[in-house]
Amino acid sequence: MQPNVYARDCGSRQVLDRIGDRWSVLVVLILAEGTKRYGELAQRIEGISQKMLTQTLRGLERDGLVTRTVHASVPPRVDYALTDLGRSLLDLVAGLESWATNHLAEVEAARSRYDAR
Amino acid sequence: MQPNVYARDCGSRQVLDRIGDRWSVLVVLILAEGTKRYGELAQRIEGISQKMLTQTLRGLERDGLVTRTVHASVPPRVDYALTDLGRSLLDLVAGLESWATNHLAEVEAARSRYDAR
Repeated sequence: MQPNVYARDCGSRQVLDRIGDRWSVLVVLILAEGTKRYGELAQRIEGISQKMLTQTLRGLERDGLVTRTVHASVPPRVDYALTDLGRSLLDLVAGLESWATNHLAEVEAARSRYDAR
Repeated sequence: MQPNVYARDCGSRQVLDRIGDRWSVLVVLILAEGTKRYGELAQRIEGISQKMLTQTLRGLERDGLVTRTVHASVPPRVDYALTDLGRSLLDLVAGLESWATNHLAEVEAARSRYDAR
């Protein structure tokens, strides 16, 4: 059976949730630059809580988009990197990011018009 | 100032939420075929609640992606259609949909491996 995002119980809907998620998009975009430590990600994504970053990374790892490597140093270092599957998302998430930034002004203008009605 | 999705208070993050949202993606994909009535959308997107569909359409309208037209018939008919701004999203949301369906098996396999660890 072909996956179908319109079907009630198709798992592709959950995949859509993962790849469209704001925090997942930002993590994937930063990991596109190369391997990063947890702390670097936390610093780059302003305003993300530790809980949310941990949850996002765990979800991306579980879905096979990101690898997590613990180095036995003192203190232990935890590195995150994209898998091949994660890299296959890059064009899409970069597209989302540039649509959001390029069309922000239009969206905000539309909102003002709507709210003024 | 350039919009920046990494900045805590940049509105582009909210735009990212809108365009990555599962229900918004499905509505935009269906409206890509042409104008649809509320009831047609409700029927095509299996399992969406009335409340969620109404909220999604209102959000898309407010953000300038969708128009809502009420026809003075009995019973009144409400039509939804993409705006030019909404149409500029089409390639992206189609890309999300095909990534989700084409990579579902890989994602599910990764999840099974993760859960079995």
